[in-house]
Amino acid sequence: MNKKMLQKAKALKPRLCHEIKTIEQKEILKAGESAVFDFGNHYVGYLTVKLSSVGSPQDAPAFIKFKFCETSPEIEEDTANYHGWISKSWLQEEWVHIDVLPCTLKLPRRYAFRYVKIEAVALSSKFDLVINSLSLDAVTSAPEEIKLSGASEKEKAIDRVALRTLRECMQYEFEDGPKRDKRLWLGDLRLQALANYQTFKHNDLVKRCLYLFAGTANNQGEISACVFTQPKVIADDTYMFDYSLLFIPTLLDYVCATNDIALGEELYPLAVKQLELAAKNFDNDVVRDSDKLGWCFLDWNLYLNKQCGAQAVYIYCAKSAVALLKLLGKDTKQLECDIENKSKAMLDRFFDSELKLFVSGKDKQVSYASNVWACLAQVLSNEENAKLLERLAVADAVKPVTPYMYHHYVQALIDCGLKQKARTVMTDYWGAMVETGADTFYELFDPENPEESPYGNKAVNSYCHAWSCTPSYFIRKYFER
Amino acid sequence: MNKKMLQKAKALKPRLCHEIKTIEQKEILKAGESAVFDFGNHYVGYLTVKLSSVGSPQDAPAFIKFKFCETSPEIEEDTANYHGWISKSWLQEEWVHIDVLPCTLKLPRRYAFRYVKIEAVALSSKFDLVINSLSLDAVTSAPEEIKLSGASEKEKAIDRVALRTLRECMQYEFEDGPKRDKRLWLGDLRLQALANYQTFKHNDLVKRCLYLFAGTANNQGEISACVFTQPKVIADDTYMFDYSLLFIPTLLDYVCATNDIALGEELYPLAVKQLELAAKNFDNDVVRDSDKLGWCFLDWNLYLNKQCGAQAVYIYCAKSAVALLKLLGKDTKQLECDIENKSKAMLDRFFDSELKLFVSGKDKQVSYASNVWACLAQVLSNEENAKLLERLAVADAVKPVTPYMYHHYVQALIDCGLKQKARTVMTDYWGAMVETGADTFYELFDPENPEESPYGNKAVNSYCHAWSCTPSYFIRKYFER
Repeated sequence: MNKKMLQKAKALKPRLCHEIKTIEQKEILKAGESAVFDFGNHYVGYLTVKLSSVGSPQDAPAFIKFKFCETSPEIEEDTANYHGWISKSWLQEEWVHIDVLPCTLKLPRRYAFRYVKIEAVALSSKFDLVINSLSLDAVTSAPEEIKLSGASEKEKAIDRVALRTLRECMQYEFEDGPKRDKRLWLGDLRLQALANYQTFKHNDLVKRCLYLFAGTANNQGEISACVFTQPKVIADDTYMFDYSLLFIPTLLDYVCATNDIALGEELYPLAVKQLELAAKNFDNDVVRDSDKLGWCFLDWNLYLNKQCGAQAVYIYCAKSAVALLKLLGKDTKQLECDIENKSKAMLDRFFDSELKLFVSGKDKQVSYASNVWACLAQVLSNEENAKLLERLAVADAVKPVTPYMYHHYVQALIDCGLKQKARTVMTDYWGAMVETGADTFYELFDPENPEESPYGNKAVNSYCHAWSCTPSYFIRKYFER
Repeated sequence: MNKKMLQKAKALKPRLCHEIKTIEQKEILKAGESAVFDFGNHYVGYLTVKLSSVGSPQDAPAFIKFKFCETSPEIEEDTANYHGWISKSWLQEEWVHIDVLPCTLKLPRRYAFRYVKIEAVALSSKFDLVINSLSLDAVTSAPEEIKLSGASEKEKAIDRVALRTLRECMQYEFEDGPKRDKRLWLGDLRLQALANYQTFKHNDLVKRCLYLFAGTANNQGEISACVFTQPKVIADDTYMFDYSLLFIPTLLDYVCATNDIALGEELYPLAVKQLELAAKNFDNDVVRDSDKLGWCFLDWNLYLNKQCGAQAVYIYCAKSAVALLKLLGKDTKQLECDIENKSKAMLDRFFDSELKLFVSGKDKQVSYASNVWACLAQVLSNEENAKLLERLAVADAVKPVTPYMYHHYVQALIDCGLKQKARTVMTDYWGAMVETGADTFYELFDPENPEESPYGNKAVNSYCHAWSCTPSYFIRKYFER
């Protein structure tokens, strides 16, 4: 723990902007009945409900269930039989007994939602529950509304939803999702920061988050995949090969966007340290594969082999380190030598000369993750990368399931010059989410499998997820001109 | 509504005595596990729990269920499938999500319990829930502990439980039960007051309750069976033939116990008014039978015919009115004439000369309720009543299911001189509850049917119920000498 850095993070803690939204919709419920309230857009905040009763005096407690939904299909989704592998405590549901009506009930927890379903689970036969009004105290640290961008109505619609996604995830930190996990994850932060530089420009929030990661690096200097800030700032004990390394491009992007050279100077040793630590996982410049679930993230696909992608991420991040060190006027010779070795090993070990695609693991799995990251790492020329991605598009490859992986695919297409294809992929993929009625972009979206969930049940999926916000970045950075 | 009377009731609102009980019992729970905490006696109050976590950082909310139990069998009782006819909102259960551990969780509602079961319904696999300690803020308006009475260990044990029952039900009003309904009912008040005069002598609490009933009489002057005091003082719309009338002996008992003639003067017109209103239900001095559930209470037996018992309650209360009026120096001639007519009609209509028992309704049902109330109404001589009760004991009669009805049976036995039999009935019936491990006496107890519940499911039964507290009255008033 670096207390000085954490003090700097604390000093950068933003004030939240509050917006009160009220629904004046009176509903009278008998036991077993429910009503749905629609706030018209996705919000993150605190709900207050004015309740009363009609009929005889209230001769029993009112037992009320609240269900908060980010999307309309969730309203009728069965959650009682949830048995996914992450905790059902993430279901945004509450059960409350009210002894005395009328009352103004302020629920103490924060929820992410557009819809609230209120059910009178149990009353007595002598009175009905009256919901008089709902009031929402919505919070964000995104300072203001941003003018929409995009060349078409479709792109503008995508931009609107992407901006909303980013805004909702901007709280005291950049959260991965305001429904779940409500926490700062490095992979999400990197993409949020990219979108932020093009939109809200709340650069101090990025700085705060960089300090939070840097200040909670462990004794070896390793940066966690995730930081908790409640009840106190502490690193999660989840360390992922790619996430730790991605601290480097996140810092580089920040320095480039803000010209805050001082922060670069302060944090570059820790950034470079991630390469040193990651290098322990290599034999002869080839990263070791692992059966350990989550040793490297890349995408939320449980069948994805991560070895090749991990190698590529390393090279990508080492190149970011070189760029950062050059900005700071430091020597980069050793790093460049390392990059050359790892790049050569990458081609030798993972490039399949028959398929002319990168393959991963002992089963030589072909995936978007491996090939997209290979492009981003630029171990081949742009021309070769473009051909690689064209082959990939028609190959029998493991596809991305998250907007996170789709982001990297779009970026890779842009980097190797396939800008129009990139734009089509973006508008097709994120546009399909908009067509489902999305107010914010989802944690997971597989157009071929709407039931996709890495958690065994999509009831705990997050429908406003930071890593999905990058269309606002792509549109402004690449597609406007 | 009589505002002056309600102001007087308000002025008599007692302060509650608080007692803090703490359990320092550390339990570590994985998801799905639970722990039971035993406070060692029945309490009414508010629970605070100190919670924390062990393992990795708390990466999901802790979803916790609390179950409050008055008796140990309730701990494992299945409540999930409760489908009784009164609201399951009475089940003393809560579901709470805790976003940030450690925390001190203060549950806002009041519960009646000895045992608390805490279940970690959902956590994540990365941390366990730690329960560090429980703290209970127990409340009562009973001023102090009372010395036990009783000639035997068994009687003393019964007295201890009866005193505890009364004490727990003494809050801002005399409640019927601190679990359910937590309210002032007239039938309960009358018995609580009798026990109170012999024990806690918190006579102002009786006075307050008399004012609450009197002050909420409706425009016709009819007194409700029950008064709500939250969110404001209001009469329930439940009017029961016997409960309205029982205001008279309740007032008489108060005046006799306290010599507060002024309250007698103030309230006797309303008391006598109950007779006048009840008289509308008579044809030729015989009360009309009714199919309406709950038109007259007498006992929680859904098969009990109430006609004969109602007639007897009327006569009993009219005689109480005569005693009250005589105390106040008022004329009673008209009332005495009415009593004579109703008593004659009672014998003509309800006394079966073959069975030599009172029978009720068109099916001539034989019940304890009818015959016991006939004794209490003293339409026969004490000698005849004694014989009646002896015949009743061997007859095929509908038996009492509540301590409320058992109270009247014991009182009737005493009144006609069968004091030893009364004592045996009391020690057998209440003693059997003590043998089940009762800390307080139950709302319902049928030794022949432990599953007895008038609500379709005993999970909502109250196990600390005011009308069960009268052994402390019987022992001190009749069985000490």
